[in-house]
Amino acid sequence: MAQLETSDFAQAVIDRMADCQDARFQEVMTALVQHLHAFAKQVDLQPDEWMNAIQFLTAVGQKCDERRQEFILLSDTLGLSMLVVALDQARGAKALAGKPGDKPTEATVQGPFFWPGAPQVELGADIAEGQHGDPTLYHGKVTDTFGKPIANCVMDVWSGDHDGLYDMQKGDSMALRAQLRTDQDGNYRFWSIRPTFYPVPVDGPVGQMLDRMGRHPNRPGHMHMMLQAPGHERLVTHIFVKDSPYIESDAVFGVRNSLVIDFPKHAPGKAPDGRTMSKPYYTAHYDFRLVPSA
Amino acid sequence: MAQLETSDFAQAVIDRMADCQDARFQEVMTALVQHLHAFAKQVDLQPDEWMNAIQFLTAVGQKCDERRQEFILLSDTLGLSMLVVALDQARGAKALAGKPGDKPTEATVQGPFFWPGAPQVELGADIAEGQHGDPTLYHGKVTDTFGKPIANCVMDVWSGDHDGLYDMQKGDSMALRAQLRTDQDGNYRFWSIRPTFYPVPVDGPVGQMLDRMGRHPNRPGHMHMMLQAPGHERLVTHIFVKDSPYIESDAVFGVRNSLVIDFPKHAPGKAPDGRTMSKPYYTAHYDFRLVPSA
Ligand SMILES: [Fe+2]
Ligand SMILES: [Fe+2]
Repeated sequence: MAQLETSDFAQAVIDRMADCQDARFQEVMTALVQHLHAFAKQVDLQPDEWMNAIQFLTAVGQKCDERRQEFILLSDTLGLSMLVVALDQARGAKALAGKPGDKPTEATVQGPFFWPGAPQVELGADIAEGQHGDPTLYHGKVTDTFGKPIANCVMDVWSGDHDGLYDMQKGDSMALRAQLRTDQDGNYRFWSIRPTFYPVPVDGPVGQMLDRMGRHPNRPGHMHMMLQAPGHERLVTHIFVKDSPYIESDAVFGVRNSLVIDFPKHAPGKAPDGRTMSKPYYTAHYDFRLVPSA
Repeated sequence: MAQLETSDFAQAVIDRMADCQDARFQEVMTALVQHLHAFAKQVDLQPDEWMNAIQFLTAVGQKCDERRQEFILLSDTLGLSMLVVALDQARGAKALAGKPGDKPTEATVQGPFFWPGAPQVELGADIAEGQHGDPTLYHGKVTDTFGKPIANCVMDVWSGDHDGLYDMQKGDSMALRAQLRTDQDGNYRFWSIRPTFYPVPVDGPVGQMLDRMGRHPNRPGHMHMMLQAPGHERLVTHIFVKDSPYIESDAVFGVRNSLVIDFPKHAPGKAPDGRTMSKPYYTAHYDFRLVPSA
């Protein structure tokens, strides 16, 4: 009788892909199966632990809906999302090797709160009207890595509110998000609030996982930015508030030194964009450098 | 300014578990994060591949309901379930080391089609009444690994129908499943059909994965068995039909040589249990050996 059984289940799965027509898929699945099995062997995974994992992953999937992506949250909190972002930027840097030009702005995680179709606003608009929070002028310039200004660069910006909640966590109305375009010199400016730290959503299975890991769920204050311009690589990043709590322990490992800036406080008076402020306000100045497309 | 960033995201996640109160959970999550990140680095995982994985896992979770467990199917088809079964039996064998007694019956995957609460039937019952298929007498003896008969051993048995479909895939009525008990000498016997090969459910994301891997989704014909008796380890296993198609390429890697048996065909007449058969029938003889509890 033929030997029908195996003691190397990983290899058996890999051998079974002999007819795979997609070489990259085969490569990825081969590595995935090897690591998955190596993990289970290394920890001598028990049947009840396996069943807990099945139930956990099922609950993660079932927590997802149009507004909630619990698998992205799981990836974020396990550092995988940030690793994928870093690998992607490292690939871009390799493509740039040998070319002159400055280092591009660092990317970070997109997170689960991007909501396409935000209102398009004029430069200088206050997207925090009617919201609590410390008024803050965001301004700076968008160039390519050679310092050449990028006009008409489309910038999506979004953040949570004064209590750290995003609009989509509260209901159907967009708030504290907008899309704007740089002017002819690549400059941008808009008003919003100074973002506060907030917990990632903890009312689902990932929240339970963090708790069991002995971890806090908080992210330091940050403004999300997505920059897109023809002829350039899309950039998804944040600006982080330097003195925010949890700046040294972001729950999703998204902090990069180069993205952390001071938000200086100013007395009432005329702001740099000419707006007259009757109460104290903050400024956040940041210049972005985009990578020209290959 | 403090170094807030890291290039070793896996280590950052692991360090963040410093306050974990559950040593085993910490050990498992540490290994999981290491392998997850090593996998992503090894294949230089691209953002669109990551997003495909997020969407795939979400779809797997959302395919699950009371009757369908797509994550178990994913685990089964990636060989993980069978690895966990084998690790568990290896642990049991280690506990037995040095003790006399026969090798216990090998375990295999439970699969997604166990449905608790099947009808309790008398020994010798025909659980295939009203069903198409080749009538088969299943019989044998249940002992412990020292050969001592186990009376009143509770046996759950279940299989698909003549077309390879399980009752729970078709509706709300149980069929081709039952619970019986061995007699005072540890003997069991029941009639059902000779199981045919069947595809695992392919109308979900796991089916798409198998297709992309270039794999067929079929399992060779098998009768599921779960044996439970006080003072003994629970055994979950199958009896496989030796000449079944796909016996050498079970989609879930569950085949063990020791579980594959002949199903001899017999002319009409008096069957070994005394039943008079007016048409040809098959027999499947298998003896089980359970591990005494530690
Ligand atoms: Fe955020
Ligand atoms: Fe089955």
